Amino acid sequence: MEPTIIERPSYGVAVSALTILPIIGMGEIQPGQDLAGLAIAAAAKSGERFLTGDVVSVAQKAVSKMEGRLRRLADIEPGVEARRMAAEWPEKDARAIQAVLDESVRIVRWTNGILITETRHGFVCANAGVDRSNAGAQDTLVLLPFDPDASAARLRARFIEAAGADVAIVITDTFGRAWREGQVNVAIGIAGLPALERYQGRTDADGYELRITEMALADEVAAATELVQRKLERCPVAIVRGLTWSGAPETARAYVRPAERDLFR
Amino acid sequence: MEPTIIERPSYGVAVSALTILPIIGMGEIQPGQDLAGLAIAAAAKSGERFLTGDVVSVAQKAVSKMEGRLRRLADIEPGVEARRMAAEWPEKDARAIQAVLDESVRIVRWTNGILITETRHGFVCANAGVDRSNAGAQDTLVLLPFDPDASAARLRARFIEAAGADVAIVITDTFGRAWREGQVNVAIGIAGLPALERYQGRTDADGYELRITEMALADEVAAATELVQRKLERCPVAIVRGLTWSGAPETARAYVRPAERDLFR
Repeated sequence: MEPTIIERPSYGVAVSALTILPIIGMGEIQPGQDLAGLAIAAAAKSGERFLTGDVVSVAQKAVSKMEGRLRRLADIEPGVEARRMAAEWPEKDARAIQAVLDESVRIVRWTNGILITETRHGFVCANAGVDRSNAGAQDTLVLLPFDPDASAARLRARFIEAAGADVAIVITDTFGRAWREGQVNVAIGIAGLPALERYQGRTDADGYELRITEMALADEVAAATELVQRKLERCPVAIVRGLTWSGAPETARAYVRPAERDLFR
Repeated sequence: MEPTIIERPSYGVAVSALTILPIIGMGEIQPGQDLAGLAIAAAAKSGERFLTGDVVSVAQKAVSKMEGRLRRLADIEPGVEARRMAAEWPEKDARAIQAVLDESVRIVRWTNGILITETRHGFVCANAGVDRSNAGAQDTLVLLPFDPDASAARLRARFIEAAGADVAIVITDTFGRAWREGQVNVAIGIAGLPALERYQGRTDADGYELRITEMALADEVAAATELVQRKLERCPVAIVRGLTWSGAPETARAYVRPAERDLFR
C-alpha cells in the first residue's frame, strides 16, 4: 500500500497521506524470541512487508518479554519501605511495590494505592511502567526495558538485516497525564527518528515566528499507532507509512524535561 | 481509499488499517466562511470525499477564525493585573496578557514570560490558547472557540448536511505537557466520538483485568492527524479513515480532570 504523495514545493515538505497498519498474528512473545523476525513473518502472511521509510511502532511489553525483563513475585523480598507502603494500602502486594521501587529513582505520588514514580530513565508514570497483565502467568511482573533506546536501536538493526528495509523504531508505553483524564501511548525508546520536530525561528505561512516550538513527533507516532493496536488486541507491532521528517535521529531521552524547565507540574 | 478490514471475531472488534488524509488547498479561513463546505470542495479537487465513519480533525485556529473569535490588540484596555505582569516581563504586551486573562479562570504559572492558565473550559495550556501567529494581521489575536464542543457539533451537522456523510469531528489544539518536552495536538472539542475508551472490568488476552482503564481516543486522533497537518502547512483539516469505536459520543469536557483526582500535577 503506497502512500499518496502530494508535492508542495512551496513549503519544502511533501504533504502525504499516512497509512497505519497493524501487524497481527504474532502470538505471545517469549523471552529470547526474534520479535523483528516474527513481525516480518506475520506481515508476510497478510501480504504485507516492511519498507524503507516505515516507522515501526512496537509495544513495550513485547520488547520487555523478548528481553526477559520479567520478575517472579515469589523471588522478590520486600524491603522496609515497600512493606510500610503495603500496610497503608492492603490491596497492594508489598513485593509488587518493591519491584516498582527497584525501577524508580523517586516517588512522585503515593495516594489511594496509586504509585507514580520517576523511572531510572527519567520518565514519570504509574508503577514505573511495571505491569502484571498480559504477563502469561499471574505471578510475573513485566518491567520496562533496561534501556529502551538501546532496545530500539537493536530492533532497528535487526529489521534492517532481516527485512532489508531501513525502518525507524518507536517503542511505546501507555502513560497517564497531568491535567487531562485518560491515558495515551508515548514513545519510551526511539531509533532512526527525531523525538522532537523543532520550529524555533521558523515562520508560518503569514511570516510570523511560530509560538509552537517543538512538536513531539515520536509521541504522536505512538498515539497514532495505538489507534490500530488498541488495548484488548494482541497487536504489538504497527507501521506508520508515509511519514517524512527533516531532523536528525534522537533518543527518547530528549523527552525528559528538567524540573526547572517544567511549568506544567 | 477504503481501509483494509481484518475481521477478528475472537476479540469482537475488527482490526483495520487506518488512513490519515490531509485536506489541502483550503486557503486562509475568514470569519463567517463555511469551513465544512470549503473542506468538501478542497477534498473534491484532490478526487477525495468525506465518508460516513470518517473522523474529521479540524485545527482550532481555523474554527476560531470562522467563528470570528478574534480580538484586535488596539481594542484591548489592559487592567491592573495585566499591566503589573507586563511590567515584570517587558517583552510581553499588557494587552495580549489581558486577552489571556479574559479567557482564563486561573493562572497556573507565570514564569519567564510564559503564562500557563486554566481556560474557562477547564483546559490547562499556554496563554489560554490565545495565539498571534497565522492571524492574517499582526495586531490580531485568535482566541479558542467559546464552546469548542458546540463548534464541533455545528461542524458535524454541516458536514452531514453538505457531504451526506455521518462524520465525527475533533477540534484540535497544540498543548504542552507536564514532565515531557515537546507539544502534542489534543482534542478541545468533540462531536460524534467518545473522548475516552473505557476498559474498566475488561480483561486482556490472558484473562487479567487491565491496568490501563481509559484510553484518550480523541486525543490520539488529534495527535495522529498532526502527523499530516504539521505546523508549517496550511492544512486545517485531516481525515482519519477506518477507525472503529464502541462507546457513546462524548464532549471534550470528559478530559477535564478534577484537581483531587490528578496525581500527575
